[in-house]
Amino acid sequence: MKNNILIVHGGGPTAVLNSSLYGVIKEAQNNICIDKIYGAIGGSEAILKENFLDLGTTKDADLDLLLQTPGTAIGSSRFPLKQEHYEKMPDIFKKHDIKYVLFNGGNGTMEACGRVHEVCKNEEIYVIGIPKTIDNDIAIIDHAPGYGSAAKFLAHTTAEIGADVKSLPIHVTIIEAMGRNAGWITAASALARKRKEDAPHLIYLPERPFVEEEFMEDVKELYDRLGGVVVVVSEGLKNAEQEPIVPPIFQRGRSVYYGDVSEYLANLVIKRLGIKARGEKPGLAGRTSIALQSKIDQEEAVLVGRTAVQAAVSGRTGVMVGIRRLPEEKYSIETFLVPIQEVMLHEKKLPDHFINERGNNVTEKFIQWCKPLIGEELPEFLSFKDKEIRK
Amino acid sequence: MKNNILIVHGGGPTAVLNSSLYGVIKEAQNNICIDKIYGAIGGSEAILKENFLDLGTTKDADLDLLLQTPGTAIGSSRFPLKQEHYEKMPDIFKKHDIKYVLFNGGNGTMEACGRVHEVCKNEEIYVIGIPKTIDNDIAIIDHAPGYGSAAKFLAHTTAEIGADVKSLPIHVTIIEAMGRNAGWITAASALARKRKEDAPHLIYLPERPFVEEEFMEDVKELYDRLGGVVVVVSEGLKNAEQEPIVPPIFQRGRSVYYGDVSEYLANLVIKRLGIKARGEKPGLAGRTSIALQSKIDQEEAVLVGRTAVQAAVSGRTGVMVGIRRLPEEKYSIETFLVPIQEVMLHEKKLPDHFINERGNNVTEKFIQWCKPLIGEELPEFLSFKDKEIRK
Repeated sequence: MKNNILIVHGGGPTAVLNSSLYGVIKEAQNNICIDKIYGAIGGSEAILKENFLDLGTTKDADLDLLLQTPGTAIGSSRFPLKQEHYEKMPDIFKKHDIKYVLFNGGNGTMEACGRVHEVCKNEEIYVIGIPKTIDNDIAIIDHAPGYGSAAKFLAHTTAEIGADVKSLPIHVTIIEAMGRNAGWITAASALARKRKEDAPHLIYLPERPFVEEEFMEDVKELYDRLGGVVVVVSEGLKNAEQEPIVPPIFQRGRSVYYGDVSEYLANLVIKRLGIKARGEKPGLAGRTSIALQSKIDQEEAVLVGRTAVQAAVSGRTGVMVGIRRLPEEKYSIETFLVPIQEVMLHEKKLPDHFINERGNNVTEKFIQWCKPLIGEELPEFLSFKDKEIRK
Repeated sequence: MKNNILIVHGGGPTAVLNSSLYGVIKEAQNNICIDKIYGAIGGSEAILKENFLDLGTTKDADLDLLLQTPGTAIGSSRFPLKQEHYEKMPDIFKKHDIKYVLFNGGNGTMEACGRVHEVCKNEEIYVIGIPKTIDNDIAIIDHAPGYGSAAKFLAHTTAEIGADVKSLPIHVTIIEAMGRNAGWITAASALARKRKEDAPHLIYLPERPFVEEEFMEDVKELYDRLGGVVVVVSEGLKNAEQEPIVPPIFQRGRSVYYGDVSEYLANLVIKRLGIKARGEKPGLAGRTSIALQSKIDQEEAVLVGRTAVQAAVSGRTGVMVGIRRLPEEKYSIETFLVPIQEVMLHEKKLPDHFINERGNNVTEKFIQWCKPLIGEELPEFLSFKDKEIRK
């Protein structure tokens, strides 16, 4: 009987999902307890199709490319696994001498991971979760790999758009950030600020009901003062009734389609305030940018991949690798193992003390918490307009 | 009488507009014929307000920041200059001992530059244009500073989104690029391709009428084959009647507001083909990214700034600094001076030989023309999915 390991990716990629894959392969290549290193080519669906590729012989130069490849090099899926699918898995694993199974993904994937563990717990098959999500909504852990890079992208992009809008301050720009139920990414835009009056001027999060009248007041006041206003909003803004603020555009079958929040709010500003406005939606660019990958995020992604292999080989199962922040003054973390049941089916939202009272900004506490995750200071910009104003 | 120089920025910024400003200041600081170096703080409107700031004493360390500052450090405007405004300018210039006036902008700014030249030509005031536009629509010259960086941003972003979509190939992604009348930026997305079937799979340009039925056929065929499809479209797509393809959302006064092309086409794909689709609109991020600034573009932006100062001091007036590509095998350029009348009121569109017959792609000729402008090869990505397919 061989001791093979299988790595499976689930859900949407991040800028460092392949960095975790790098960590898994590197660690497994060096571990004498492991024979073949299989990748499931195309997510959990690939388990059922037994679509496994041997990754163990990948050369170092190719592996290095993983650190700068967005998406996932082995593919992912959003395949809806059913009980009958789970029940087939132990036999498939045994057929391929797979003793260790690693699932790398977000909340949905951790649920699958937990259920695979359930069907495998009486076999000698060890199942470990590796966290990944740009949304940062996995419970228990301080933060998830993927979030730091998404945060860095939005902070840089907001600072740069802020410099543009300040140069030609004639409109309101609404930037739409990913994260439908949790505002972690949207909130990270606050790291763009270096000086008073820097963008983003307003931040609206899905954790708080969006009140159109307050938004209009906030925008008007800032526009009258600054001319150019930058607003960052979550794609998932909801009103007090917990309905999306964008009216449905059309329905197809049971699915209802809403327009983009950025465009909707830009149009509202034009219509109601008579002020020029535009919406920006970087969308997938926000989770794929290699130029704006966070170095810390990448290192941690590699680390959780390596740790998962070590945990599996040590006989641990039904656990996810977590990241815990140490109480030291300088940012540092350690990994730990969380029982998968504790993270399954939870969704971590931005806590109240990270949001200001009016619900249009984050607090200094959030900024201090988030800052280390993007890995470096934002670059300094020069504006002679500031000097002229300061005269 | 002093010999002061004034630099004025017009219209929307680029990622390297401040690099041209850097070139102007550096050259002027070293030129013994020039006394004060003034910046018009807030575009051509600042001339009328006599809002000039002395930039000449700026320290080198601060000047270096200009090379990595998006927007414009002296501010710009879209102020509609009238004949009465132009007529006031010679006296304002004389009052401030301004002998040299540089206008840095796109087609609109070059028109203003030409008209300022008209009112100044009988005075000892020398007026020079410096080209700048992400849209690359200035006539006569090979390309304009600002375009290379916008092209690089879109090529990288398309390649990265392509890697993401290939990882989880379940939808059609429509990326909207800037450039309402000219497709230069949209076309540059083609540089993202390294292998057959790489994104972008389809490119639609404003130079060709957009035919909805052909678009549907193209998308359907690719989706059936690849699962994930990446389409890049210009924000200014028009139908055969030369009307915007997006129906107007609402009207305010004489302005008609259209929705975003990306969202419109994504919804069309969902409604008509029943395929999941999403729109992305990086918007202003596409002209502000410092991480994806093209090194060549930055160097050329500095060069045209320096050249404009030299031309003014040499007594040239009513000309714009142009860029001409040399016929050498290795990419190289030289600057030359174009009479401003030749560029005024023209708009350079993508020529026919850069667009394929069906109007859903660019030609190899375009790719060869564009490649040197982004300054470097795109990074290599690793996909095990390719290897599996190749087995």
